[in-house]
Amino acid sequence: MSKLRVVVWGENIHEQKMPVVAKIYPDGMHSAIAEGIRESGKDVEVSTAILQEPEHGLTKERLSQTDVLVWWGHAGHAQVEDVVVDRIQKRVLEGMGLVILHSGHYSKIFKRLLGTSCSLTWREAGEKERLWVCNPGHPIAAGIDRYFELENEEMYGEPFGIPSPDEQVFISWFEGGEVFRSGCCWYRGNGKIFYFRPGHETYPTYYDKNVRKVISNGVRWVRPQGTWIDACPNVKVACEPIVVKGESVH
Amino acid sequence: MSKLRVVVWGENIHEQKMPVVAKIYPDGMHSAIAEGIRESGKDVEVSTAILQEPEHGLTKERLSQTDVLVWWGHAGHAQVEDVVVDRIQKRVLEGMGLVILHSGHYSKIFKRLLGTSCSLTWREAGEKERLWVCNPGHPIAAGIDRYFELENEEMYGEPFGIPSPDEQVFISWFEGGEVFRSGCCWYRGNGKIFYFRPGHETYPTYYDKNVRKVISNGVRWVRPQGTWIDACPNVKVACEPIVVKGESVH
Amino acid sequence: MSKLRVVVWGENIHEQKMPVVAKIYPDGMHSAIAEGIRESGKDVEVSTAILQEPEHGLTKERLSQTDVLVWWGHAGHAQVEDVVVDRIQKRVLEGMGLVILHSGHYSKIFKRLLGTSCSLTWREAGEKERLWVCNPGHPIAAGIDRYFELENEEMYGEPFGIPSPDEQVFISWFEGGEVFRSGCCWYRGNGKIFYFRPGHETYPTYYDKNVRKVISNGVRWVRPQGTWIDACPNVKVACEPIVVKGESVH
Amino acid sequence: MSKLRVVVWGENIHEQKMPVVAKIYPDGMHSAIAEGIRESGKDVEVSTAILQEPEHGLTKERLSQTDVLVWWGHAGHAQVEDVVVDRIQKRVLEGMGLVILHSGHYSKIFKRLLGTSCSLTWREAGEKERLWVCNPGHPIAAGIDRYFELENEEMYGEPFGIPSPDEQVFISWFEGGEVFRSGCCWYRGNGKIFYFRPGHETYPTYYDKNVRKVISNGVRWVRPQGTWIDACPNVKVACEPIVVKGESVH
Repeated sequence: MSKLRVVVWGENIHEQKMPVVAKIYPDGMHSAIAEGIRESGKDVEVSTAILQEPEHGLTKERLSQTDVLVWWGHAGHAQVEDVVVDRIQKRVLEGMGLVILHSGHYSKIFKRLLGTSCSLTWREAGEKERLWVCNPGHPIAAGIDRYFELENEEMYGEPFGIPSPDEQVFISWFEGGEVFRSGCCWYRGNGKIFYFRPGHETYPTYYDKNVRKVISNGVRWVRPQGTWIDACPNVKVACEPIVVKGESVH
Repeated sequence: MSKLRVVVWGENIHEQKMPVVAKIYPDGMHSAIAEGIRESGKDVEVSTAILQEPEHGLTKERLSQTDVLVWWGHAGHAQVEDVVVDRIQKRVLEGMGLVILHSGHYSKIFKRLLGTSCSLTWREAGEKERLWVCNPGHPIAAGIDRYFELENEEMYGEPFGIPSPDEQVFISWFEGGEVFRSGCCWYRGNGKIFYFRPGHETYPTYYDKNVRKVISNGVRWVRPQGTWIDACPNVKVACEPIVVKGESVH
Repeated sequence: MSKLRVVVWGENIHEQKMPVVAKIYPDGMHSAIAEGIRESGKDVEVSTAILQEPEHGLTKERLSQTDVLVWWGHAGHAQVEDVVVDRIQKRVLEGMGLVILHSGHYSKIFKRLLGTSCSLTWREAGEKERLWVCNPGHPIAAGIDRYFELENEEMYGEPFGIPSPDEQVFISWFEGGEVFRSGCCWYRGNGKIFYFRPGHETYPTYYDKNVRKVISNGVRWVRPQGTWIDACPNVKVACEPIVVKGESVH
Repeated sequence: MSKLRVVVWGENIHEQKMPVVAKIYPDGMHSAIAEGIRESGKDVEVSTAILQEPEHGLTKERLSQTDVLVWWGHAGHAQVEDVVVDRIQKRVLEGMGLVILHSGHYSKIFKRLLGTSCSLTWREAGEKERLWVCNPGHPIAAGIDRYFELENEEMYGEPFGIPSPDEQVFISWFEGGEVFRSGCCWYRGNGKIFYFRPGHETYPTYYDKNVRKVISNGVRWVRPQGTWIDACPNVKVACEPIVVKGESVH
């Protein structure tokens, strides 16, 4: 079986500008995320791409050879060109898997695919997050106990402006009193989408072994299972014998 | 109870350019659609808007006073300004109802809210369409028998590139041998969306009493039931006592 | 408009056997629940039924005149006769609304309609519960702020063995560290189902004004909107001309 | 990788009593269905079970070693013992895959897992059925063109009394004028369910190469991906420090 081709995309902004982030992620957050997936097995082939590359590193050709795209963005959402977003959306609907992390809830591609506000409440206080498993048999929760904890995380709270998830894998409890649907699955076209909440840039979340396990599981769960090439064909010849009637605009 | 404020939007292009359409709909398709809804009861207040008006007749103020928007478009999808689409999307997520008709499957607003290709197959041969009721108790099917027929319609066939409908009200059978999910409901944010297939411009579909009944039912089914104003609030004060820890980017 | 006919069903066991429960609910939990709904408006007509009555107070005739059934059970699930469960299920699929409270998660009728284990984790420690609104515009959350709290409640935790809710209205945070999908909506047949978590019998939950508001909202949200009488008809006459071919078993 | 253990269950009644069925399926319908799956690849290990065996051939031990159960029943639904249905349901919720064929729409296990009437309309006239693919990239439709046809089949028509499918793979067109959701997927607990319509006993449907391909694809699509053992644990020790308050019934 050929390897699963995974591209981890990072906006790579705060890592360059904020010492606190650079200290935790000296090679960029995308590198740490990629490393976690890479370590998870020999069935994956992981590369990275960043906002600053031409076409954000996501040319048409590269996307055509990508099975799963993992996305981390925050400060640079608006800088992502619409033509690249169009391209990613098209590939997801065809069957490419998509894993959206943390502040990617406000990325163009996530909002584009879900159609809703993707809004939430938030607080940056380094509080404890406990992620509960809602389906202990789900492949994305494989190897995770009933729950796992992150000592310091940004809080995201309900209401989360999303369509009802097709499958709910995690819900988070926060020290400050909020809750959040933190692991959500959707089917769109022929593609699978997994949103996973943790990963604020000022904490070492992407080195956590449970977080790495979930992302690695998610990457495999969203893997392509077929291809649906979009078209809007004019099928002039009918299956059954018909006589063309009435007027036409075409 | 105050009246339900309905705006029927039409692109009003083929009615102006094609004699065959002008003959069937001398006052525009939007007028015929509006008339059908107006006749359905005194609980609605129906007005129309067209592409050619400033801001396509859908100013921020007018939309804020609209409960339900009904949409017919085909040749002019690309001419609808993105800023107006943004505005409609926002209102739907807040709670405004939306009824999308026929070729509106490819409108910016429908694709925006669903996130998928909204693609389908088609044939313009004036063939017979039979619409089957999938839930005989659904309010949108009220007053409709097990099925109803349209003698001449454009064919739309599967695959229809949509997220799985939250509720399926109609599925169509076509003379030429195809099928199509022709009455579909979705919940997005706090708004309800109803897609209804029939209505090719070269046939007198919007004068058909069953079509008028379904659209009138749909308008009432999508009616607002509350308001969700979008925000992404920074909730600095937690419910539970917490001590702020760690670093911050904000 | 005729009144919405609501029946509140209670198993009425712990109220009779346990002084601590009898003290809080001297007339039974069903009476307190019914009182809360009755106070909510003149558009409802509320009566009660209990396990100990013939046919548990839910004769075929009475159910045929019931628009919404509200259910509280715990210790007596197994005592509910299957023939009565069949009858309720049939009515829900036809269009009768159903509100299931708290420990009703393990009632025969809830498990019957959802098809899953309806299992959860639990702890009886009188801890604080905070219910967060997931859709601020949802009719069931009308009049509720961003969240509300109950000072003492039994804890229910994930995983909750349910099909993905069609709409999520509330998720709970518990003092002890768990989370739970505490307000869930499903469509089954032509009926609407609302599950609402709070209501352990040793706490005065059904006197809480927010709990009463949510139940009263829920009762109205699940109201019937049409009727789907089940049948499996043999339609011998086809819509299209066909010639009967092949063998038959009937 | 170990083989996928598939059990094909057949009620084996009409094959024994009706010459027309015995002629087409001399070894029983289950044998023909099993043969089709067996031919599809070396990754599956296929056995059969029938109604007439002790415990219908589905002992607790055997089910514990079954990955996917394929079900064909019609005349003998009522003869299937409830204790065996309980057992199958439990295994599906844990993660075992389930493929329900044709008249299995009225089997106890299908109705149990879906919770609805599972009712439909029908006609036995040997008419043509055309099955349209709704998601060309779905693994269950792999190897199938835009549609495929069966020259002679029993008609099943809408309304089909099911919860909205989580994924729609096929919709059928019938010669006599009806339509039907003929390939439907649901997630229940940790298990996947695939319903596939064709297979009336008086036609050689289970020898058709497209039908065999779809069933074989379906068997692989519902394969277990983890295990969720049901429990309703009393979690006495909380994650967070709490002081037990209030009264208790346990």
